[in-house]
Amino acid sequence: MGQITKVSPLAPATFPDLPIIKGVRFGTAAAGVKYQGRTDVMMAILDPGTAIAGVFTRSRTRAAPVLDCQEKIGGANDKGAAILVNSGNANAFTGSKGVEAVTAITKAVAETCDIPQSRIFTSSTGVIGEPLPFERVTAVIADVFGKVDEGGIASAAKAIMTTDTYAKGASATVEVDGKTVSIAGIAKGSGMIAPDMATMLVYIFTDAAIDQKSLQSLVSAQADTTFNCITVDSDTSTSDSLIVAATGASGVDVTGNAEFSGALERVMLDLAHQVVRDGEGATKFVEIAITGAASDSDAKVHGMAIANSPLIKTAIAGEDPNWGRVVMAIGKSGAEADRDKLSISFGDVEVAKDGWRSPNYSEEAAAAHMKGEDIRISVDLGIGTGAATVWTCDLTHGYIEINADYRS
Amino acid sequence: MGQITKVSPLAPATFPDLPIIKGVRFGTAAAGVKYQGRTDVMMAILDPGTAIAGVFTRSRTRAAPVLDCQEKIGGANDKGAAILVNSGNANAFTGSKGVEAVTAITKAVAETCDIPQSRIFTSSTGVIGEPLPFERVTAVIADVFGKVDEGGIASAAKAIMTTDTYAKGASATVEVDGKTVSIAGIAKGSGMIAPDMATMLVYIFTDAAIDQKSLQSLVSAQADTTFNCITVDSDTSTSDSLIVAATGASGVDVTGNAEFSGALERVMLDLAHQVVRDGEGATKFVEIAITGAASDSDAKVHGMAIANSPLIKTAIAGEDPNWGRVVMAIGKSGAEADRDKLSISFGDVEVAKDGWRSPNYSEEAAAAHMKGEDIRISVDLGIGTGAATVWTCDLTHGYIEINADYRS
Repeated sequence: MGQITKVSPLAPATFPDLPIIKGVRFGTAAAGVKYQGRTDVMMAILDPGTAIAGVFTRSRTRAAPVLDCQEKIGGANDKGAAILVNSGNANAFTGSKGVEAVTAITKAVAETCDIPQSRIFTSSTGVIGEPLPFERVTAVIADVFGKVDEGGIASAAKAIMTTDTYAKGASATVEVDGKTVSIAGIAKGSGMIAPDMATMLVYIFTDAAIDQKSLQSLVSAQADTTFNCITVDSDTSTSDSLIVAATGASGVDVTGNAEFSGALERVMLDLAHQVVRDGEGATKFVEIAITGAASDSDAKVHGMAIANSPLIKTAIAGEDPNWGRVVMAIGKSGAEADRDKLSISFGDVEVAKDGWRSPNYSEEAAAAHMKGEDIRISVDLGIGTGAATVWTCDLTHGYIEINADYRS
Repeated sequence: MGQITKVSPLAPATFPDLPIIKGVRFGTAAAGVKYQGRTDVMMAILDPGTAIAGVFTRSRTRAAPVLDCQEKIGGANDKGAAILVNSGNANAFTGSKGVEAVTAITKAVAETCDIPQSRIFTSSTGVIGEPLPFERVTAVIADVFGKVDEGGIASAAKAIMTTDTYAKGASATVEVDGKTVSIAGIAKGSGMIAPDMATMLVYIFTDAAIDQKSLQSLVSAQADTTFNCITVDSDTSTSDSLIVAATGASGVDVTGNAEFSGALERVMLDLAHQVVRDGEGATKFVEIAITGAASDSDAKVHGMAIANSPLIKTAIAGEDPNWGRVVMAIGKSGAEADRDKLSISFGDVEVAKDGWRSPNYSEEAAAAHMKGEDIRISVDLGIGTGAATVWTCDLTHGYIEINADYRS
């Protein structure tokens, strides 16, 4: 990926104020893995009893740290745990050297922090195929551990950035049984973003109490409607990881609690949207809402066909309400569709209905919607009750510049 | 699509000399469907006894002319037949108006040329969702029919162009039983190009004698390894059509003849490559050869994942031998792969082997290959005997300009 650092026009005005999550402390350091003059290692130390759930890339060329995390998720949580992330090198497609690096880093963290190695979760993000200079990471671990602090989450969000143009954070608090439960999360990601988890690292922390199995099933289900419903470029990373840690420090059991579940989903969706808003070269945030499909999974297939179509993404960049290309994408998706029952709207403007241009069609009104920064395309298939909403950004000269004009 | 008309840097030097195919005559006219000052209607009149095979888009939002052709393929061929194509308007997603237009055009051709309406095959290519002003087409039919000529195939290739930057033709002649059989074909297409047939119209003519069923099974099989193995932008048109007409005028029965079959496949592949070479904004022609896959279909899935990856296509545009992105595409494709058995070459330069950077890797040699106009990426999965080769082009600022900067 390239070196363009101008902040995305779709970025939030500021990094949000995130609540302190009891039971987790954060530290960062500048290890010089690849980047100079910035932090590139982040550590989160989790108290004994923390339940940890994870969702990872389904890529068949998964990176070594991902394989290591997947083995460890669901293990005993009576001792503490740690998350250790480096940016600048993905430690992916590095053969036995990759395993060696993961082993060295998790061993060093385990020894320094007095936590079992089976509870050290690592992620690496950056260049693929270069050996990770893991000694640079292990060299700073004692220093980072000496500085860990409850208030360090904003610095942690910065340390995990690669081509991101802004740090990403989101939070929620909910009342359960008269007590407050807090959730705070951070994420990185801007390219190689597609379903099945993208080049995206997400860490969410809560002081809620919940057993690991309940947390895992909640997180797996919610990943499907949030992170797995976004796409920047249809390309799926070898390293995507979402880790959710519940420290239990609030003493509030949230198992089966709908308010908590809703709050967690809002945090996930917020972070997922922030990743799309930082899509490489993005100038428009696009929501694609599909209804009336034969099934929910068909609706998602149609939504993703629209979201990944280069012709639609370039039309949006050109502020062109080109609904013919939406018809094309539905036709090619492979999911069920009946041309003559299709309706399509851009914003509130119905552009196509019952298989042809809408009688209410106004090129001017549709074009006016396309000039905005937030674009909404709604499609009603008219054949069932299946629905899904997915999110993407436009395809611009900026994407080409970032990925073609600069050597990675 | 846009209005950029600078000829593709990958275009052949000249339109080829195509042989006369006995039993077929061509005519063209400027009907002013959309374009001004150029021909936009082409007619091919086929002698009685011509066997006609067709392969069409699998889009679920197929255009009215495609549905009409699909119904007619395989019908009785004792009378003559005609192919009538207009450019400038796709007559797609036009509801009952679309059917009305097809009926009006096929009826007018049938009456003017004294051919059964069931043997009139039409295609339309251009804007989607606008009603086709079919009266402009029917108005010129008598004029076109009055001028049809055996030598008119080059003019026919020009009349069917839309965003194409050059006319596309290819031919072959083979000796069968001491007699010469000729094949000549024309094609159009440059955007909305992906498997399952793209915005692509292809017409191939031969004087060979072959029954319709044999021709159809030959053409269907060969379309899978030629036109269905190319992609420009992963977008699939509503109107793709490949029609092969065998007039039998040579008196040579080619049923089951391997030389004829090979020659027909070469013509198809040549036209398919010409479509890719005219890909919107293309500056590189890319061949992706997959071997060692679990099956041929797995090999094609991997090949298409590489060919459609925006990150790989932009890397090629930037002349960057970024094999990490190839690893990523294989991982996401969904087909079987073992990270540690993968080998990848760019041209003759092995860049990755057995799951890591090749010991022979030379960044300089790989970069030198990427500077050429013809790029070859070879991937050996190392797990089976499945193989496939697919073709694509790079993704450049030119593609964005054509599709975003100009209103369609």
